[in-house]
Amino acid sequence: MSEAHALDAAMLRALQLAAHGPSTGINPRVGCVILSADDTVIAEGWHRGAGTAHAEVDALSHLAPGAARGATAVVTLEPCNHMGRTGPCAIALIEAGIARVVYSVSDPGAYSAGGATRLRAAGIRVDGGLRESEGEAFLGDWLVAARLGRPFVTLKWASSLDGRAAAADGSSRWITGPTARTDVHRRRSAAGAIVVGTGTVLADDPSLTARDASGDLLPGQPVPVVMGRRAIPSTSAIHTHPHAPVFFATESLAEVLADLHARGIRSVFVEGGPTLAGAFVAAGLVDEYLVYLAPTLLGGPRLAIGDIGVAGIDDQRLLSLHSLDRLGDDILVVARPR
Amino acid sequence: MSEAHALDAAMLRALQLAAHGPSTGINPRVGCVILSADDTVIAEGWHRGAGTAHAEVDALSHLAPGAARGATAVVTLEPCNHMGRTGPCAIALIEAGIARVVYSVSDPGAYSAGGATRLRAAGIRVDGGLRESEGEAFLGDWLVAARLGRPFVTLKWASSLDGRAAAADGSSRWITGPTARTDVHRRRSAAGAIVVGTGTVLADDPSLTARDASGDLLPGQPVPVVMGRRAIPSTSAIHTHPHAPVFFATESLAEVLADLHARGIRSVFVEGGPTLAGAFVAAGLVDEYLVYLAPTLLGGPRLAIGDIGVAGIDDQRLLSLHSLDRLGDDILVVARPR
Ligand SMILES: NC(=O)c1ccc[n+]([C@@H]2O[C@H](COP(=O)([O-])OP(=O)(O)OC[C@H]3O[C@@H](n4cnc5c(N)ncnc54)[C@H](OP(=O)(O)O)[C@@H]3O)[C@@H](O)[C@H]2O)c1
Ligand SMILES: NC(=O)c1ccc[n+]([C@@H]2O[C@H](COP(=O)([O-])OP(=O)(O)OC[C@H]3O[C@@H](n4cnc5c(N)ncnc54)[C@H](OP(=O)(O)O)[C@@H]3O)[C@@H](O)[C@H]2O)c1
Repeated sequence: MSEAHALDAAMLRALQLAAHGPSTGINPRVGCVILSADDTVIAEGWHRGAGTAHAEVDALSHLAPGAARGATAVVTLEPCNHMGRTGPCAIALIEAGIARVVYSVSDPGAYSAGGATRLRAAGIRVDGGLRESEGEAFLGDWLVAARLGRPFVTLKWASSLDGRAAAADGSSRWITGPTARTDVHRRRSAAGAIVVGTGTVLADDPSLTARDASGDLLPGQPVPVVMGRRAIPSTSAIHTHPHAPVFFATESLAEVLADLHARGIRSVFVEGGPTLAGAFVAAGLVDEYLVYLAPTLLGGPRLAIGDIGVAGIDDQRLLSLHSLDRLGDDILVVARPR
Repeated sequence: MSEAHALDAAMLRALQLAAHGPSTGINPRVGCVILSADDTVIAEGWHRGAGTAHAEVDALSHLAPGAARGATAVVTLEPCNHMGRTGPCAIALIEAGIARVVYSVSDPGAYSAGGATRLRAAGIRVDGGLRESEGEAFLGDWLVAARLGRPFVTLKWASSLDGRAAAADGSSRWITGPTARTDVHRRRSAAGAIVVGTGTVLADDPSLTARDASGDLLPGQPVPVVMGRRAIPSTSAIHTHPHAPVFFATESLAEVLADLHARGIRSVFVEGGPTLAGAFVAAGLVDEYLVYLAPTLLGGPRLAIGDIGVAGIDDQRLLSLHSLDRLGDDILVVARPR
């Protein structure tokens, strides 16, 4: 077996090991394989979640002192360089006498990055990017959120073709049809949290669950999050959600996103209403827009999106169209900031 | 040649004759062929426009008195039954001793219809619907407008994805891109008239011409029409339009459409602004919606569509989606009343 082949096989194995870790939580799932100088697997490890050993340290722990000297560590994520609860992996690898490190994905963390540089400074040969696309796909939402430094934010709204969310008297159930509603619930179900303002809870009393067409709960349920200072009645439907709702009596979107990120939430589905949605747009905190357009006209004052702080055309929030689809009688526009 | 074949050939010839008439004007283009009892063409005629002989009368005028006795009249439109400037064709055919009438399209006119019934009452054999789809396609906009009793109304607007036509300070040039703008001009060029409110003229000073991508005038130019009581400066760009603008100091949409119809205008392109557009929607006078959506967000108070008189969701103006397309970076939704 060639050296390149041995490294590749070890990386695929490391990805398998990574999958043993918990898929939710604030830390990424990482796997590590230690190869001896003659390319034999001498240890394996993976990360079991926050507060436990990182994959590299886990693998090294299975070896007798000195046994890793001259060996190669193959790891799915660039070894970290920060003093967390477990100490930097870069140091552990250096101290163990590892001669070479091969990793898949670069560490996107603001505090943890720099491991490769540190290792090289210690004279260790370091190569990144092996099976990188598989590594990135495996890390999925965690990687996106880590690069953003906050959860990925999807803003969804439903409106008539003239941009209204409800008729003048507030009535709106349902402006979009069953296909569009099913699509919303499927996407809700894939999100870590669903965020609304107090206005929406007080007006609509939504349950914020993800349901199938017959009303049954889908397997994945986003944590319900309510932003705003007004009190929500204890009888609100949101209290029947399988997850305890999280209330933030603040207007600071950054604070809420940071808190959710720290709880291990990597994607947030903002469902309005118009005031909160407008605040997310104005703050430049939307990564993806889902706009469901129903083939109807409502007129009147109840807009789907409130103010977004655009004074003149030069401040407009330009988007790029990602996809355009018909969902039953409705239209789904998926767009992203340009 | 069989009788059916002879009638069919005569109808195709009648459609050719019809095409000699003027393609604009309040009257339809109609052709007529007179066949003797042995299926020989003995006369042809067509309608040359308002105030001139109808096609049947034109054809009969080429025959000596009595020569049409027992003959068959093949005509592209059901013979009329009204006392217009030329007298009902049904009477002329009866008096000429015609034995049989074959026509393509039924007369959609509120006043002129009933010719077939009148002919049958006089003992004449009458068959309608020969080459009907060709006949309808040939009559095109005239037929649509005649059936509606007014011009066909297309309402066009352009908005951001959140339903705004301009930023808060009124700036809006251009929210849609060149492909969408070219599409608008092409469609304008096919319309008989382009209608706006005084608000749009005073705010934007549009020329209301149909232009190509390099700004040159397209061959077809809609008549520019302005509705509202406010005076328009004599220096307005609208006065440079190849057609003299028509001003209606009224809010009555029905009155304006009737007047335009009487002028021979069969299709009207309503380009706003939001107040006039809303009035057309509220009155149920829109036959087709063209909604150009730009991938941008503007927020603020400048909506593309103003009030449309919908109080509750049960009054919503339900549309059906006719087509959905990407035009460059923009979206075009074509919808019709459900
Ligand atoms: N078409 C749709 O997709 C859709 C979706 C959801 C809701 N809706 C409709 O929207 C209506 C409710 O509108 P709404 O605008 O009152 O609801 P909202 O946006 O859900 O709630 C507004 C409230 O959010 C809180 N908030 C927290 N952070 C904020 C920030 N950074 N900026 C602004 N506000 C912040 C404030 O609460 P406090 O005042 O309590 O501090 C504010 O009053 C309902 O009629 C509902 O039916 C439509
Ligand atoms: N995005 C787009 O596609 C688009 C297109 C056009 C315009 N715009 C924008 O729209 C803005 C102008 O808005 P606007 O609402 O003032 O313009 P508008 O709808 O063109 O004009 C309103 C005026 O139309 C007259 N009118 C005639 N019949 C009416 C009826 N049945 N009901 C109501 N009004 C009737 C009234 O004039 P009198 O008061 O004189 O009697 C009324 O004040 C401009 O800023 C322009 O840029 C956008």
